[in-house]
Amino acid sequence: MKQKGKLYLIPNSLGSDDLNAILPQGNFNIIKSLQTFIVEDLRTARRFLSKAGHSGNIDHLDFLILNEHTNTNEISNYLDGINQGKDIGLLSDAGVPCVADPGADIVTIAQNRGIQIVPLVGPSSILMGLMASGFNGQNFAFVGYLPKEQNLRNKRIKELESRVYKEDQTQLFIETPYRNNQMFESLLGQCNPDTKVCVACDISLDSEYIVTQSIANWKKLKTKPDLKKRNTLFLIYK
Amino acid sequence: MKQKGKLYLIPNSLGSDDLNAILPQGNFNIIKSLQTFIVEDLRTARRFLSKAGHSGNIDHLDFLILNEHTNTNEISNYLDGINQGKDIGLLSDAGVPCVADPGADIVTIAQNRGIQIVPLVGPSSILMGLMASGFNGQNFAFVGYLPKEQNLRNKRIKELESRVYKEDQTQLFIETPYRNNQMFESLLGQCNPDTKVCVACDISLDSEYIVTQSIANWKKLKTKPDLKKRNTLFLIYK
Repeated sequence: MKQKGKLYLIPNSLGSDDLNAILPQGNFNIIKSLQTFIVEDLRTARRFLSKAGHSGNIDHLDFLILNEHTNTNEISNYLDGINQGKDIGLLSDAGVPCVADPGADIVTIAQNRGIQIVPLVGPSSILMGLMASGFNGQNFAFVGYLPKEQNLRNKRIKELESRVYKEDQTQLFIETPYRNNQMFESLLGQCNPDTKVCVACDISLDSEYIVTQSIANWKKLKTKPDLKKRNTLFLIYK
Repeated sequence: MKQKGKLYLIPNSLGSDDLNAILPQGNFNIIKSLQTFIVEDLRTARRFLSKAGHSGNIDHLDFLILNEHTNTNEISNYLDGINQGKDIGLLSDAGVPCVADPGADIVTIAQNRGIQIVPLVGPSSILMGLMASGFNGQNFAFVGYLPKEQNLRNKRIKELESRVYKEDQTQLFIETPYRNNQMFESLLGQCNPDTKVCVACDISLDSEYIVTQSIANWKKLKTKPDLKKRNTLFLIYK
């Protein structure tokens, strides 16, 4: 019987062009050995594979598209090649696959079929923001997006802040990039003066900005960072 | 005025000797440029720096020890060199600094002093286990260790399981390696048959094992994985 292939989970850059700064050499070796990739966006994937030094003709690789337009029934065929011994790469558009990123559905199918899944190392704004925040890394929660509607969002911020104090748990969340400044203002308006907010922005880029201050100190700052359209992770802790 | 130095957060291997498989080339370049390292264990640090190709004489580097025996007052001097323009590396013993790992106290001091903190990319069992589990990566919590005492632990498992269903939040936790098998048995005993458990063990090693099954299916398995003394992350989700 032919040995089954594996599913490799392949991180991408967070926007930086210098892949050697953020991805291990071992990833490039694995990438070059693969012929089939599950990707979110074809153009982004091709650009990444070319920068990663894929030696084959990129036009002859097999690409399977996985994004919000993909039919759930289709997905279940994506891993069929693995039974014939083919390795497949699940490639993220930015950061690591499956964490604040699509891909978990594919991995669930792979787990159900007993396929070996190999996660590769790469940049994660959640992990790197947490490391650099100075906040509790023994107990933390990433909760994704908060509600858009202002009252609901304010209520959610208070809930998360209360979990910081009750459970000693760092709370991490994100916002659509063009609404980052409003989110920051909501945090300053809703949280306790002593509560600390870390703003972790453009992680791994030259413009990287990761600063922790108490709400009281953030309010005193004359020039606040402009977060508009910059990828930003918000963290709160005590 | 001399420019201030930076604090680099430097991940280590999770046990694998092949550093090129799990750390970017950029990390090695930064490591080689540093003369001062804050480390948990001197021997582990020296071994890592030598493998990472630190070209200087490792005996002439400055090492500052940060572990459970370190006096809190001492720590506050560790970053003084940064005012003189020196860059300092905070090096983990295993995985990334500050996440389920000491170091956050140093980073908090650095944040309070307005020091630039640069997190580097490296292997994290939490992140890689979550990626490969197939579980919800848009909403997840890592809660560290559960209580040792059996009744308290069982109660905590039920609490975490209830958060899975109520908040759609993946729950991640760890156990002291020699008690991993007991933890696994407690999960099988406490959780709903439909609840899924992912066991993520020896991540990034040749013996890597990351398998997700429902409680009902885990119970049916004749040979369960032996987790004793192997670094293991447990994840539960629905």
